[in-house]
Amino acid sequence: MTTAQTTLPFKVADLSLAEAGRHQLRLAEHEMPGLMALREEFGPSQPLKGARIAGSLHMTVQTAVLIETLVALGAEVRWASCNIFSTQDDAAAAVAVGPNGTVDAPAGVPVFAWKGETLEEYWWCTEQIFDWSAAAGYAEPHDGPNLILDDGGDATLLVHTGREYELAGSVPATEADASHEWSVILDVLRRSLASSPDRWTKVAAGIIGVTEETTTGVHRLYELAQRGELLFPAINVNDSVTKSKFDNKYGIRHSLPDGLNRATDVLIGGKVAFVAGYGDVGKGAAEALRGQGARVIVSEIDPINALQAAMDGYQVARIESVIDEIDILISGTGNKNVITLDHLLGLKHLAIVANVGHFDNEIDMAGLERVPGAVKVEIKPQVHEWRLPTGRSILVLSEGRLMNLGNATGHPSFVMSNSFTNQVLAQLELFTHIEDYPTGVYVLPKKLDEKVARLHLAALGVELTELTPEQAAYIGVPVEGPYKPDHYRY
Amino acid sequence: MTTAQTTLPFKVADLSLAEAGRHQLRLAEHEMPGLMALREEFGPSQPLKGARIAGSLHMTVQTAVLIETLVALGAEVRWASCNIFSTQDDAAAAVAVGPNGTVDAPAGVPVFAWKGETLEEYWWCTEQIFDWSAAAGYAEPHDGPNLILDDGGDATLLVHTGREYELAGSVPATEADASHEWSVILDVLRRSLASSPDRWTKVAAGIIGVTEETTTGVHRLYELAQRGELLFPAINVNDSVTKSKFDNKYGIRHSLPDGLNRATDVLIGGKVAFVAGYGDVGKGAAEALRGQGARVIVSEIDPINALQAAMDGYQVARIESVIDEIDILISGTGNKNVITLDHLLGLKHLAIVANVGHFDNEIDMAGLERVPGAVKVEIKPQVHEWRLPTGRSILVLSEGRLMNLGNATGHPSFVMSNSFTNQVLAQLELFTHIEDYPTGVYVLPKKLDEKVARLHLAALGVELTELTPEQAAYIGVPVEGPYKPDHYRY
Amino acid sequence: MTTAQTTLPFKVADLSLAEAGRHQLRLAEHEMPGLMALREEFGPSQPLKGARIAGSLHMTVQTAVLIETLVALGAEVRWASCNIFSTQDDAAAAVAVGPNGTVDAPAGVPVFAWKGETLEEYWWCTEQIFDWSAAAGYAEPHDGPNLILDDGGDATLLVHTGREYELAGSVPATEADASHEWSVILDVLRRSLASSPDRWTKVAAGIIGVTEETTTGVHRLYELAQRGELLFPAINVNDSVTKSKFDNKYGIRHSLPDGLNRATDVLIGGKVAFVAGYGDVGKGAAEALRGQGARVIVSEIDPINALQAAMDGYQVARIESVIDEIDILISGTGNKNVITLDHLLGLKHLAIVANVGHFDNEIDMAGLERVPGAVKVEIKPQVHEWRLPTGRSILVLSEGRLMNLGNATGHPSFVMSNSFTNQVLAQLELFTHIEDYPTGVYVLPKKLDEKVARLHLAALGVELTELTPEQAAYIGVPVEGPYKPDHYRY
Amino acid sequence: MTTAQTTLPFKVADLSLAEAGRHQLRLAEHEMPGLMALREEFGPSQPLKGARIAGSLHMTVQTAVLIETLVALGAEVRWASCNIFSTQDDAAAAVAVGPNGTVDAPAGVPVFAWKGETLEEYWWCTEQIFDWSAAAGYAEPHDGPNLILDDGGDATLLVHTGREYELAGSVPATEADASHEWSVILDVLRRSLASSPDRWTKVAAGIIGVTEETTTGVHRLYELAQRGELLFPAINVNDSVTKSKFDNKYGIRHSLPDGLNRATDVLIGGKVAFVAGYGDVGKGAAEALRGQGARVIVSEIDPINALQAAMDGYQVARIESVIDEIDILISGTGNKNVITLDHLLGLKHLAIVANVGHFDNEIDMAGLERVPGAVKVEIKPQVHEWRLPTGRSILVLSEGRLMNLGNATGHPSFVMSNSFTNQVLAQLELFTHIEDYPTGVYVLPKKLDEKVARLHLAALGVELTELTPEQAAYIGVPVEGPYKPDHYRY
Repeated sequence: MTTAQTTLPFKVADLSLAEAGRHQLRLAEHEMPGLMALREEFGPSQPLKGARIAGSLHMTVQTAVLIETLVALGAEVRWASCNIFSTQDDAAAAVAVGPNGTVDAPAGVPVFAWKGETLEEYWWCTEQIFDWSAAAGYAEPHDGPNLILDDGGDATLLVHTGREYELAGSVPATEADASHEWSVILDVLRRSLASSPDRWTKVAAGIIGVTEETTTGVHRLYELAQRGELLFPAINVNDSVTKSKFDNKYGIRHSLPDGLNRATDVLIGGKVAFVAGYGDVGKGAAEALRGQGARVIVSEIDPINALQAAMDGYQVARIESVIDEIDILISGTGNKNVITLDHLLGLKHLAIVANVGHFDNEIDMAGLERVPGAVKVEIKPQVHEWRLPTGRSILVLSEGRLMNLGNATGHPSFVMSNSFTNQVLAQLELFTHIEDYPTGVYVLPKKLDEKVARLHLAALGVELTELTPEQAAYIGVPVEGPYKPDHYRY
Repeated sequence: MTTAQTTLPFKVADLSLAEAGRHQLRLAEHEMPGLMALREEFGPSQPLKGARIAGSLHMTVQTAVLIETLVALGAEVRWASCNIFSTQDDAAAAVAVGPNGTVDAPAGVPVFAWKGETLEEYWWCTEQIFDWSAAAGYAEPHDGPNLILDDGGDATLLVHTGREYELAGSVPATEADASHEWSVILDVLRRSLASSPDRWTKVAAGIIGVTEETTTGVHRLYELAQRGELLFPAINVNDSVTKSKFDNKYGIRHSLPDGLNRATDVLIGGKVAFVAGYGDVGKGAAEALRGQGARVIVSEIDPINALQAAMDGYQVARIESVIDEIDILISGTGNKNVITLDHLLGLKHLAIVANVGHFDNEIDMAGLERVPGAVKVEIKPQVHEWRLPTGRSILVLSEGRLMNLGNATGHPSFVMSNSFTNQVLAQLELFTHIEDYPTGVYVLPKKLDEKVARLHLAALGVELTELTPEQAAYIGVPVEGPYKPDHYRY
Repeated sequence: MTTAQTTLPFKVADLSLAEAGRHQLRLAEHEMPGLMALREEFGPSQPLKGARIAGSLHMTVQTAVLIETLVALGAEVRWASCNIFSTQDDAAAAVAVGPNGTVDAPAGVPVFAWKGETLEEYWWCTEQIFDWSAAAGYAEPHDGPNLILDDGGDATLLVHTGREYELAGSVPATEADASHEWSVILDVLRRSLASSPDRWTKVAAGIIGVTEETTTGVHRLYELAQRGELLFPAINVNDSVTKSKFDNKYGIRHSLPDGLNRATDVLIGGKVAFVAGYGDVGKGAAEALRGQGARVIVSEIDPINALQAAMDGYQVARIESVIDEIDILISGTGNKNVITLDHLLGLKHLAIVANVGHFDNEIDMAGLERVPGAVKVEIKPQVHEWRLPTGRSILVLSEGRLMNLGNATGHPSFVMSNSFTNQVLAQLELFTHIEDYPTGVYVLPKKLDEKVARLHLAALGVELTELTPEQAAYIGVPVEGPYKPDHYRY
Repeated sequence: MTTAQTTLPFKVADLSLAEAGRHQLRLAEHEMPGLMALREEFGPSQPLKGARIAGSLHMTVQTAVLIETLVALGAEVRWASCNIFSTQDDAAAAVAVGPNGTVDAPAGVPVFAWKGETLEEYWWCTEQIFDWSAAAGYAEPHDGPNLILDDGGDATLLVHTGREYELAGSVPATEADASHEWSVILDVLRRSLASSPDRWTKVAAGIIGVTEETTTGVHRLYELAQRGELLFPAINVNDSVTKSKFDNKYGIRHSLPDGLNRATDVLIGGKVAFVAGYGDVGKGAAEALRGQGARVIVSEIDPINALQAAMDGYQVARIESVIDEIDILISGTGNKNVITLDHLLGLKHLAIVANVGHFDNEIDMAGLERVPGAVKVEIKPQVHEWRLPTGRSILVLSEGRLMNLGNATGHPSFVMSNSFTNQVLAQLELFTHIEDYPTGVYVLPKKLDEKVARLHLAALGVELTELTPEQAAYIGVPVEGPYKPDHYRY
């Protein structure tokens, strides 16, 4: 592998950060049996030899294990985070330095990510993962990567938009009401176009596919595909069963009480907790809160999920019907304005408000900020008391953004091992069976989904029963799977 | 409606049976809010006016409420049971007599079903639901029904097979190794062909579609469709979310402990219970047993479901690994020979063995019967002690057949209300929108699935939250649903 | 043992009833490991040799195993039921006939109990268990038993009251407002006094002690002791941990849903269930209902128990606050008029009302019966629909009496094995260590309580850890127990 | 109140620490409704006017609310921590400065506590709480306090031992094998005796009683009482139901998963967790772990608790039987050497070991430290990887000491509110009804225990039902309680 001979792109003062990170990696590897199994299975045959992967995904300890798994399978990798806050600097340092490198002579993967980037820095970082030139230190330079591993679609967006403006010959002027982020993106592309008229066109041409981690990114991909603008095939990792049903339900079950505890130390037992939304996130949240002895009330807009909540023994009510009973108010819907200003003003004194759903617009934080006389007091980072003109206060976690990230540490390694094993299998699938994937958006074949699960069983002491050939024939499936029709709901 | 002026086809000595049944119906109606809501919504407009429905489905109290709902919507109906044992005679009597009829002048629906039919009687009954002739008492006679409501596919089978042999000109000879049931069917068709060369051809021509209740029946339909032999469109009711996820999971959660209690009165708390299979049935079974304080061990062949079981806190093991710890052994897989003779011989003394999965071949009952020296002692009906040559005994419930039917009373009305509301909506859909259904097998549109759930919320005191138009637009769904993509797993 | 050569005192037509009962006994023995272990431990040494036990306790299958355990330890026994309805005739027959007897030559224990006694018959039966005379068939006759095993205190009452009136020289006249039962008792004693002036005085003199099963009976004993009127020592079996904490909590957890299912077949999942009282009975009831997917609301009068309920995640409310949400209303308090007429009139249509607490006065059945225009319709035995003038109906189970007895089969054998092992140990304790028990009321020594638990572990596959001598010394207890101070709450 | 005019005894550089602490206090007050209700009820009447309380209890935020409650009721207070590590400096600063004080002119309570004291500093601090002299700044000086509020008994020990040596005339020489702590205590007393021959004798004479928080302290008190050496009455707060059953069970249920998460971020779901001990601590631990989806195995030495665990659905096994399945090993027994070196060496790679029971000797840490070749690596504070010569590692939390304190933040405020409301009521009881308490050890009257619960209901939205006079009479209790006999187990 031609490792890029750059200095480390992030702010590492000395080796101790990398050492601390290496330590975390070692522990995380134990909790990521799927990735470690892939290293064992595919390490010898190096199936990703020749793959050049541009990765854009939260640069955490777990991602570090993912990156080193891709490398172990033969890939070359460059990495940026997909969020300005989510990088764990020790993990980034460890990956960049590599197991055998030093700060001065890093032998790992070029990582462009640090905690607390500005938006300008963020998009500069994202740009770097597409630079596979000699200037970037490659002995065998290329126009760009041949694979993208994306989370939220920013890397994919940059390629598609860059190419679009190159074809158009210019980057449009920034509109007056453009978001700051959009103006930064346009600046990046303007600068790029000024130095090369076909950089992104060439990058796009070299890419054989993308694997996407999230609902949001998948949504963008389906829109591109529907408009006929998608440039290369995409695998929707988000909708693998072993991603969506595990990441959301079991991840939140773990990290919601964790975040509440770290943020507030308030006893959950005996409290009235309200969970908006009874999808996988809400199911995990409700189970966790009940498991701690809270009385849980659920709201839903979908009558099927509402009926499930009732059958699971929860009261199902509209927020406003029970607003004066709620001690802990959780939003887990993926929609906007679920918790309105009226709700916030109607809550009990020192009720806790937290979001585990999606963006911070699940809670009307903008409305809250405009309340005349409301005072925001920082109790500690990511925990704010809002003193309201009603005479009551509420405690808002993580400024209304995802509290499992802001107040806890996100999904545990074992959960991410499921998601990331899907990612590696998706990268492998594109790189080794691209002929099966004309441009379009795909989910992983069920058999690979089952494989992800299979790789996580031994670590939990699970004994899997095997079908006899007679049994397999009786239900009409292969002995080795896949076992279920695509519409099976688990 | 031209009610058929037949004598009652079942064995009613006097009106008291019908009165008792009417009583049960009244209580069941309260627990079947979906069906009652359909009566209220559609009763005035009579959208099934002109529908002639041949129904083949367990003739229970709940089915009686279904039948009277179909009638309330304008349909004419004839009914047989789909199982020789499952008829509740009082329910059958009540439906046949009708709310205003008498034994001598029944004013209800012609019902051909009684508890404990012979196979000959069973297929004679099934034949009767296709007889809409003047001889059957109809003032406006027809060649047959225009809709089938089927459970397991026997009614559909009779039409397809009858027509096939009519086209062939003869019924084939009964093979030496044919099952008794198949020979009975051939006899029925032989007799039919002798009296009319095109009875089933005409019946088939008049049918616009079928709605099917079960996995087994749906499986047959997909096979027919794949072979190009399906004669009319079919709606697969089984795979509605409000059927499969409710009927299996919540139905079994209710009726498994009920059956165990009625059969054995053994304390479930503290016992080691083993559940083979962690699909919806297994999930419901495991939850029920844990809810009663049992320690539950699960087996699975699908690694995804196995991982779910582990994440839900269950030990996942092969039966043989823990065979000497099991007090209660439940099979809920839908496969055959899941509990083998070796398992049965290895169980603890007086361990309980029961099936909530599928056919009685889940447990190797045939093998058990061949064990030299094994003695079968009836403790009470549907509960047998098998004294084994090992010196130990086991308790087998319902002879290895579905114990939730044999030892309990099957799914409760509320669960069946979900399933049957799907059935009525499916019948409505075919009868009023047949143009949308070319021959093929369909699931109900998600919006109707959601409607089924919606109709069951008020009875449980559930308040449904409504999307604002802005929220609906934000997530790209109509305010009134459907809310989820088809691949959503709930 | 000199078995009394009487004809069988109950109505046995032939041997088949006894055979059926013997069958039940064999299965129950498997679920009563504590009693069977006592037979094994003490059978050889016959420590109850010389004990003459007069037993008054529900004559069920489980009691039959108790009786035969007492006999196996060397005792002679005579038995009556303590309730006119609770006898299981097959169990009574089996015990009376004995394992080796016949109807004509019974070789078991004289049993005076049948299902459906009149009050006159009931007290005649109770009288018989004190008759150990030659006329009763004893070769070595005695004035009476030397031990009582009592449930509710009726046997103890008869001895104390009989002796009191003998000392007074006459039985007082029956007062005008006396209950029917009291007048029957007075008649019995009047007849007795007429035939012998000192029968009960002699009986009382011969009794060395009583062991009492229930709260009610224990309450009577403490009152007698406080007034200085208790004639012999009493062991309060009711307050053994292995009785009260198991019998109430785990027994009700089992039999409440069992009774609901057998009575109504209504799906418990999704329903709103209200449990009045959060003592051991309420705790078991709430857990069972939640385990079936109900939403459970609890009421309490004791703030400590109320706080426990809240900490366990239940809504705690007064009945009247939520009366219009309740689908299933359970009373488990031991108090009277807990469910008032106003509550009954305020319930939803076809709400279910059931008592698992104490007497039928927990529910104001008397008030209900006086409601003008209320109509009581029997749905099936022990299940009545009350049509109320409000236009709504309610379903009342077991006429407001204990539904776990009336609609289900009472506590399962395993639970009763705990209670009855305490009984046998208590009888043993009195008979072999009477010197440690001056007249007064005692609970069993904690070590025996622990022994009861110990004898039930193997059947559940429980491995008990053993203290090392160093550990035992460290916490200041013997290696072999007892392990806890008396005030420990478990 | 004559506030002592000392400079602040702890290390406060400026007011910001006190301000931060005041902030925490305000939030904690919301979660401590019992204490706030006492301020409201008793603030006006000042029943603790004249009380001089020497407090020795972890100087946390919750204790700060306790201290200020005592002050609000009229008491003068001096405070030390009862543990060298447990002081939260901001809470200490806030209490010392007081709501209206400044660093230079503190107007709060003299607090002698900071995080990370040496043993010498610790016992100096403890000594200070007995100094109520003019030198300590009191306008109306006294020989000492008149009440002790103790946690673990160190304050009580100092008084008893000091007086003992004064009576003996000398402090004995420090023995060669004395613990370091004991030698420090002897030094303190030697110094004291040198300056005053009767300091502790006078202090002891002035004390009317002590209230003790913990099992350990209570144990010491009972020993003193049994030996006839107890100098004043003591109230055992530890065994109030609202302390022991809440603090242990619900406190651990909260803080065990909290500590595991903060220490390791390992997904609990799907793991095998082993809980040694099924007392209140173990019950809370098992419930919490199951609530997070772990499979929980329990060990017990007491057959009654073992049977409870089985009835609650847990596998009950000896550690060594399942050692190779355990991912998370929790000790919650209160005994020593529960987790032996053999257990530690037999665990799976990277298994987590944590103690929520008692002292660090529950786990054989001493043995671990002596293993040749074992390497201890600090992952982060209070989390150590022990690399064992077996080639496997284990993760030990909090060096084997209580991880709910070391890795989490101890019991939440709401739990402590229950305990501390008991403390205040106990102080009130001694100060205002000392005549009812001859020297001895007492638990609080049940009615006060019930009062503690009562004061916590409104905060949880609990509606308490009230007995009617008829109902109260029926069960023989006052309408206003107490409701249960002393032996009731809850």
